[in-house]
Amino acid sequence: MNALPKSHTEYLWFNAPNRKQLFHITDQVRELVHKSGVREGLCLVGAMHITAAVWVNDNESGLHRDIDEWIEKLAPFGPDYRHHATGEDNGDAHLKALLLGRQVVLPVTAGDLDLGPWERVFYHEFDGRRKKRVIVKVIGF
Amino acid sequence: MNALPKSHTEYLWFNAPNRKQLFHITDQVRELVHKSGVREGLCLVGAMHITAAVWVNDNESGLHRDIDEWIEKLAPFGPDYRHHATGEDNGDAHLKALLLGRQVVLPVTAGDLDLGPWERVFYHEFDGRRKKRVIVKVIGF
Amino acid sequence: MNALPKSHTEYLWFNAPNRKQLFHITDQVRELVHKSGVREGLCLVGAMHITAAVWVNDNESGLHRDIDEWIEKLAPFGPDYRHHATGEDNGDAHLKALLLGRQVVLPVTAGDLDLGPWERVFYHEFDGRRKKRVIVKVIGF
Repeated sequence: MNALPKSHTEYLWFNAPNRKQLFHITDQVRELVHKSGVREGLCLVGAMHITAAVWVNDNESGLHRDIDEWIEKLAPFGPDYRHHATGEDNGDAHLKALLLGRQVVLPVTAGDLDLGPWERVFYHEFDGRRKKRVIVKVIGF
Repeated sequence: MNALPKSHTEYLWFNAPNRKQLFHITDQVRELVHKSGVREGLCLVGAMHITAAVWVNDNESGLHRDIDEWIEKLAPFGPDYRHHATGEDNGDAHLKALLLGRQVVLPVTAGDLDLGPWERVFYHEFDGRRKKRVIVKVIGF
Repeated sequence: MNALPKSHTEYLWFNAPNRKQLFHITDQVRELVHKSGVREGLCLVGAMHITAAVWVNDNESGLHRDIDEWIEKLAPFGPDYRHHATGEDNGDAHLKALLLGRQVVLPVTAGDLDLGPWERVFYHEFDGRRKKRVIVKVIGF
């Protein structure tokens, strides 16, 4: 394959009705990979806000509740963050984003997401009720 | 250097005899970088299963035991995960994967992995005794 | 745009006067993106040492103190790491690096870092008082 490099960039918008919310976005990401025309490359999926995460794991509701309880234990919502001196109340959301990670880089092979059998992509909002963006950038050839 | 883009993709298979196991894979990854012919680029190394991690740190056995104790403290093996209603017993392994991270993107410079003096690549299995894959995708020119 | 692939690699050096220190490096990274001439691509920013992190979050001093307290709680400095049998005293620094992550991959769009409104890039040193490097590799076309 002798092709020139190409890329495709789009922004997904979310406006979660709740403070915390989980969005399954594998299908949206896959569609953008197809749209990009990239056959071999990488697909960056990244939260553009700092109080949300993007991660890959199983699409299983019990696990999702386990993850929610786990992040509340390790980075609890609460009033005692120094960040709140700015008027914010989302100190925990910043820590949760650092804990779970704000981006993934997915392989693109033969024109498709190259995922394992249970790999699914999620956008995890920790401070919703406002419009927030996720970048999807596909680059390759 | 006026070269067209190129990529090389391979899958490493693991079948850990134990539930938890650490594999040092720097040499295998480096070999694939050489095989790819890429001089300047990125090398994605990612677990394709959701109960294992890929991370970079020191190849020192004491540290590896520290890491093991640490992840057991923060994401303990146990019977009380909601995910287990599906019949699984590996809820902890999903959380450990989220904690340590499931992928790394390594720089490729002048045809080789561009690593610091103690950077080594590890595949960390948290739910072994079955065949599982790691993708290595080198892309660049 | 019909361009051949290109890349640009530089190494940022740090010598923190303290054991732990936070460096805001967004401007340095952006300058290297401009210097690279890449219009569409990815920018890898990664610690080349295993006792430091690179992460993206808000440039707010209260939050930075929250993050510091949080990592001390989850991965405390202390004498009891097995890694210290090697003569080191930085076991905690390795765990902090795994917790916060050692690298980020930033999108480059239209010749600039494609960041959200509050995304800023930080190098977080956990075992300073020595010279350490961060790689910045821009690749694209």
